[in-house]
Amino acid sequence: MRTRPLKVALLGCGVVGSEVARIMTTHADDLAARIGAPVELAGVAVRRPSRVREGIDPALITTDATALVKRGDIDVVVEVIGGIEPARTLITTAFEHGASVVSANKALLAQDGAALHAAAEANSKDLYYEAAVAGAIPLIRPLRESLAGDKVNRVLGIVNGTTNFILDKMDSTGAGYQEALDEATALGYAEADPTADVEGFDAAAKAAILAGIAFHTRVRLDDVYREGMTEVTAADFASAKEMGCTIKLLAICERAGDGASVTARVHPAMIPLTHPLASVRGAYNAVFVESDASGQLMFYGPGAGGSPTASAVLGDLVAVCRNRLSGATGPGESAYAALPVSPMGDVVTRYHISLDVADKPGVLAQVATVFAEHGVSIDTVRQQGKDGEASLVVVTHRASDAALGGTVEALRKLDTVRGVASIMRVEGE
Amino acid sequence: MRTRPLKVALLGCGVVGSEVARIMTTHADDLAARIGAPVELAGVAVRRPSRVREGIDPALITTDATALVKRGDIDVVVEVIGGIEPARTLITTAFEHGASVVSANKALLAQDGAALHAAAEANSKDLYYEAAVAGAIPLIRPLRESLAGDKVNRVLGIVNGTTNFILDKMDSTGAGYQEALDEATALGYAEADPTADVEGFDAAAKAAILAGIAFHTRVRLDDVYREGMTEVTAADFASAKEMGCTIKLLAICERAGDGASVTARVHPAMIPLTHPLASVRGAYNAVFVESDASGQLMFYGPGAGGSPTASAVLGDLVAVCRNRLSGATGPGESAYAALPVSPMGDVVTRYHISLDVADKPGVLAQVATVFAEHGVSIDTVRQQGKDGEASLVVVTHRASDAALGGTVEALRKLDTVRGVASIMRVEGE
Repeated sequence: MRTRPLKVALLGCGVVGSEVARIMTTHADDLAARIGAPVELAGVAVRRPSRVREGIDPALITTDATALVKRGDIDVVVEVIGGIEPARTLITTAFEHGASVVSANKALLAQDGAALHAAAEANSKDLYYEAAVAGAIPLIRPLRESLAGDKVNRVLGIVNGTTNFILDKMDSTGAGYQEALDEATALGYAEADPTADVEGFDAAAKAAILAGIAFHTRVRLDDVYREGMTEVTAADFASAKEMGCTIKLLAICERAGDGASVTARVHPAMIPLTHPLASVRGAYNAVFVESDASGQLMFYGPGAGGSPTASAVLGDLVAVCRNRLSGATGPGESAYAALPVSPMGDVVTRYHISLDVADKPGVLAQVATVFAEHGVSIDTVRQQGKDGEASLVVVTHRASDAALGGTVEALRKLDTVRGVASIMRVEGE
Repeated sequence: MRTRPLKVALLGCGVVGSEVARIMTTHADDLAARIGAPVELAGVAVRRPSRVREGIDPALITTDATALVKRGDIDVVVEVIGGIEPARTLITTAFEHGASVVSANKALLAQDGAALHAAAEANSKDLYYEAAVAGAIPLIRPLRESLAGDKVNRVLGIVNGTTNFILDKMDSTGAGYQEALDEATALGYAEADPTADVEGFDAAAKAAILAGIAFHTRVRLDDVYREGMTEVTAADFASAKEMGCTIKLLAICERAGDGASVTARVHPAMIPLTHPLASVRGAYNAVFVESDASGQLMFYGPGAGGSPTASAVLGDLVAVCRNRLSGATGPGESAYAALPVSPMGDVVTRYHISLDVADKPGVLAQVATVFAEHGVSIDTVRQQGKDGEASLVVVTHRASDAALGGTVEALRKLDTVRGVASIMRVEGE
């Protein structure tokens, strides 16, 4: 074994970073044995240097992250600060100064993954980011290595723990969205400002990364259709139950149009209770991958948290260190397929639509005509009337999102339709 | 991209081999793009050369596997013939003649993994074998790479599809073992001679491989405690249901004695219906991995079959070819921890024991005394009597297998105990 240690610079020392530093210390011998050389924490860049950080030599702490990544003797930079800047500049600076990079930064990778990969390649360095998607669950490596000889057709997953906690709570207790969110916040599952989670931005970033790797095609955050879950109601869960379904916030990446294009989207959807994703509880994540040869695979585990994310970071750190020692680099960006990303209107799925309608004869005929005119075939209809008001629940066969959108627009114009109470996609069948 | 192709020799062209050859042809462009050079099928060694093999140039077919692996121009040998010999000699010969090896041979790896790894390392070549465990499910790579920075404490899984099909059938239909086996055979899920599956040899080989990788310790097939599932009865399933459990054939690899040793075992066991492994149906496989930092991860998918296994082989092929191009090798054997493997007697778990006893006063007191004398604490007891016969169902707290064995031996000697109807371990709680 080499005795000269590999030097690691840590950017960020919050929940994940402190756990990375802790494990690097407590498991130093194991890491050295697995890498073939010791690894040494050579510097830790933080914003608040005065905070006490247990187990970390105060001499390693710096507020000057730029100077740290420019030192020239750093083998691997671990970036766990998140956000676009200064993370982006620090990572590219690290590559230029001879370091490989392990990052957990989903937002940055979803927005600028191509540029970061290009910078890594230009400097013959590694860029690894298992921790950016679904915490500890090995997903990036299986997709880009284990399934490298297969053709992935679909990735369907629960990739945000906060929203799964909220939806699970709504499902199991009948609570409304706000009540469930309040509990998630109180328990530390939701941040003070939950926007990134509940509006689907976090899941959309992960969908962009997964779609890119799965389909060997550049997919950016802007390419991902995104709908949050703040408007999911207790009534939606009641409707889902009647269908033998529950509701999950899903990230779905698919080949479309006979494989000539891809789509990526995040939205709440009904899925059958018999689908393995339906039983993913609390803040857990799970991702289904469907491929030509391997069929259906599922990966399940904790999707967030300091320790699980640190585990993913350290797995990458071991791989990158091994590559440094052997003078090789791991797989870089694979975007050779360069498939176009189709808009949401091209996505084909099923829909569950609840309408508030006038309780009089002929309404169903009118509504059914609108669906037919837009080429959306109806699977089932259920009418419920009381006190001159009635509700109409329509479940469609598979149709394009554009056709469904046109249908709903036309329905809203009908005098007999008082409102569209909810539209929910039905997936996983 | 390099234009000179990498040359692949295929040993075996059965269900898996023919699928590997097919995908190498139909997905040649994708494989080339992902590897960075084209791959070419340079020879296929078979036993019956006269059989027509669709899509494979007859000029590539040979019965002389030894000459093929000795050619010297082969980059990667893909071994899918199975069994110990001639596979072992062919693989070591391949290393000596400059090739890396991708194998799906669990029996050989479980028996001679250390020697094969040594041969690979001596020749600076790769030995990859994702397909040896749980078919298409990425498990070897996540364990040896993604979790390389974590400490794995337990691997608990369903790693044999045939037995899971049979047990699932018994559970869902109330069928006996023979009836369920007959159906599995008729549907092609069980081989004409099902011994390797139903007696747990196949699962034990996989347990040895998984334990070795998870604990960085050499674990051989002989180290794995093995109990088949041919004696599981419909009555056992009825008992399991009363416990809120089902029965699965589990492979369990654990750290024992405060982490100072490891254990590996395969046997039927009751697991709670709420455990994710309980809902693994049909011939599917699933493996739970518990680690210090990442918590509980689960990997799920088809555990066998030509296409899924071929997907795993091709994933390895891409990785090994990429390593060839960069002049590097991937992770080899990691056995630095070299922990002792403890015998089955040291395993600590819970037990469900059904006794046929005389229906007279004092029997329970006698039985309870025997348990107490052996230090096995009883959790619950249920007595059922009819016609002078009675059954006593005892569920214990956690106890060592040795203590339980001593208890059962002493119980058999009691006049009032007419027989031990079944002993089943209870796992996953």
